[in-house]
Amino acid sequence: MSAFPFRLIATDGAARTGVLQTPRGDIRTPAFMPVGTAGTVKALTVDQVAQTGADILLGNTYHLMLRPTAERVRRLGGLHRFMRWDKPILTDSGGFQVMSLSGIAKVTEEAVTFRSHLDGSKHVLSPERSIEIQADLLGSDIVMQLDECVSWPAPHDRAAQALRLSARWGERSKAAFGERPDQALFGIQQGSTFEDLRRESAERLQEIGFDGYALGGLAVGEGHAAMCETLDYAVPMLPENRPRYLMGVGKPIDIVEAVARGVDMFDCVLPTRSGRHGQAWTWDGPINLKNARFAEDDTPLDETSDCPASRDYSRAYLHHLIRAEEILGQVLLSWHNIAFFQALTAAMRLAIAEGRFEAFRRDFAARHSRPADRGA
Amino acid sequence: MSAFPFRLIATDGAARTGVLQTPRGDIRTPAFMPVGTAGTVKALTVDQVAQTGADILLGNTYHLMLRPTAERVRRLGGLHRFMRWDKPILTDSGGFQVMSLSGIAKVTEEAVTFRSHLDGSKHVLSPERSIEIQADLLGSDIVMQLDECVSWPAPHDRAAQALRLSARWGERSKAAFGERPDQALFGIQQGSTFEDLRRESAERLQEIGFDGYALGGLAVGEGHAAMCETLDYAVPMLPENRPRYLMGVGKPIDIVEAVARGVDMFDCVLPTRSGRHGQAWTWDGPINLKNARFAEDDTPLDETSDCPASRDYSRAYLHHLIRAEEILGQVLLSWHNIAFFQALTAAMRLAIAEGRFEAFRRDFAARHSRPADRGA
Repeated sequence: MSAFPFRLIATDGAARTGVLQTPRGDIRTPAFMPVGTAGTVKALTVDQVAQTGADILLGNTYHLMLRPTAERVRRLGGLHRFMRWDKPILTDSGGFQVMSLSGIAKVTEEAVTFRSHLDGSKHVLSPERSIEIQADLLGSDIVMQLDECVSWPAPHDRAAQALRLSARWGERSKAAFGERPDQALFGIQQGSTFEDLRRESAERLQEIGFDGYALGGLAVGEGHAAMCETLDYAVPMLPENRPRYLMGVGKPIDIVEAVARGVDMFDCVLPTRSGRHGQAWTWDGPINLKNARFAEDDTPLDETSDCPASRDYSRAYLHHLIRAEEILGQVLLSWHNIAFFQALTAAMRLAIAEGRFEAFRRDFAARHSRPADRGA
Repeated sequence: MSAFPFRLIATDGAARTGVLQTPRGDIRTPAFMPVGTAGTVKALTVDQVAQTGADILLGNTYHLMLRPTAERVRRLGGLHRFMRWDKPILTDSGGFQVMSLSGIAKVTEEAVTFRSHLDGSKHVLSPERSIEIQADLLGSDIVMQLDECVSWPAPHDRAAQALRLSARWGERSKAAFGERPDQALFGIQQGSTFEDLRRESAERLQEIGFDGYALGGLAVGEGHAAMCETLDYAVPMLPENRPRYLMGVGKPIDIVEAVARGVDMFDCVLPTRSGRHGQAWTWDGPINLKNARFAEDDTPLDETSDCPASRDYSRAYLHHLIRAEEILGQVLLSWHNIAFFQALTAAMRLAIAEGRFEAFRRDFAARHSRPADRGA
């Protein structure tokens, strides 16, 4: 297939930087995709998100199929038009959130049946229906196959069962997707933290053939060290010439370590979620603006940033807004955090292109974890 | 005093348009001042507010003196710097909100003593302290005298007592304010809905001499008709050559009718408060975006507006955001509403300058109250 050309510009060790070309614009990798759960990157206008340099957003099939419904989004011209974002959108398959949010979900060979967390109504999501929602109704640029993601830790036989079901669903997803020159379909590797299962999954996916390969079943509680150990062997199992996407990750340090292992794409709700709770991510690590030590701190979060939220407002003002539970505090910290995650991926792209990624990685880890800069 | 030149450009009946010149910029009248209660126009960046054409913001002394405290704002460079708004700011005296929000307030000749609604701590607000907070600590451009605003309805003797106390406080306010070429002090007319008391109040204020004259004690439950009747006689009692400011007003129809009676300045939380609850103000009246009839309405709130929130997003999208309780829905509707109130005052300024204000007023009332356009 290879619907979208993926051009590697440079590699540095296992780390790589490149460009995934899509009809709606280039995605520079390593790429961080802000999450627009329900048709909005929470608290931000798309213009604010675009200003941070984001090349692509993620939309959630589960949320959108329940409200406003995928059919309504279609009637309103598709997800890009609905939310006014004309650059690429990747949608997840809905499977992960069906299992984590709906509470009652029943998985069979055919499909997953679940009840909406909004109104308890019953829904069925099959591989074919997920493709229909993502590719036909929402009009996503990058479509994810439906998969079954087991919780962690999982017994070997349970993880094997889930990856094999995911592989069969991957095959059905590809058949349902068919030939679409303007859209891409990504497969998802499963297998929990078992090397043999990750290998089996990677082999099955490559037999089917996808436009890109995601690593699923990580960032589900196994922790940073176990995630890195899994990536050590799991990433090289995936084709070098296609983008590799680590789903749901993560903290800046997770992202840097995954890039060091050859991952190209990321998504996470962390920047917006933690921003709404007063946390700002900085080069010196996370800080909590609620902390009294910021009450009269007249410095901005990052005076070198192009983002107004990072550059123009004092920490004292942000502290006040968060303490007073003002919406603007949530807006500015979400905006700053998205800008920081974009700045982080931009810095990695440059470091890889200039052949100094190992130094970047070491300096980042040292500076980012300085205990003196941590908020309470 | 007349610290700030006030130049009338045109009058049309009792309606007038002009410019109040301040060191931080011109205020075009009739002017609507968005309310930045706690150092933020709720949900909006100052850049978004500025983009709507607002020449001046209002800040609340009561909220700011309690959190982050006026002293802290001073140490951080004053309110303009703190919230990043370099155009004029008018601050209220704190009196109205002490009496409406703090619950327990005790008024004596000397001052009002109250407990914070945040933590129950005890505070004293005197005319002199209010001036200190506004003029010295927050660094407001237009400072309001402390007054006592009675609730409605009030017996004649109670209203008389309050206006006389307010007049004595006005005298003390002026003495405390002294000579400040870069700041202005406004007096506040009281007297409830009693013509004789409004006259007594206006006369006392003019004996003292202020840079501008506000009408207090309205929009406190008397209703549109009683407010208009009071304005019929109360506005002409105030000097023609100084700005007249109707405090806390109001709905678009209230503003148009007050302009028709010679009022120049307004403030109200309505656009942001109602925006946070899903209500949009339009030329065709208010509509509630939660209403199911907007679920697939692909039209924007106002395609002719310069405001992105009014022009670029469909009602269907706004409906979705409000239904899903997304922060962006509150942001966009607050933004749209502030833009609408600015567009309304801009349209009135033009109509007055072109000598067609009566036609504007008639057309506005007819269109704005069309029952078919009302939301449920």
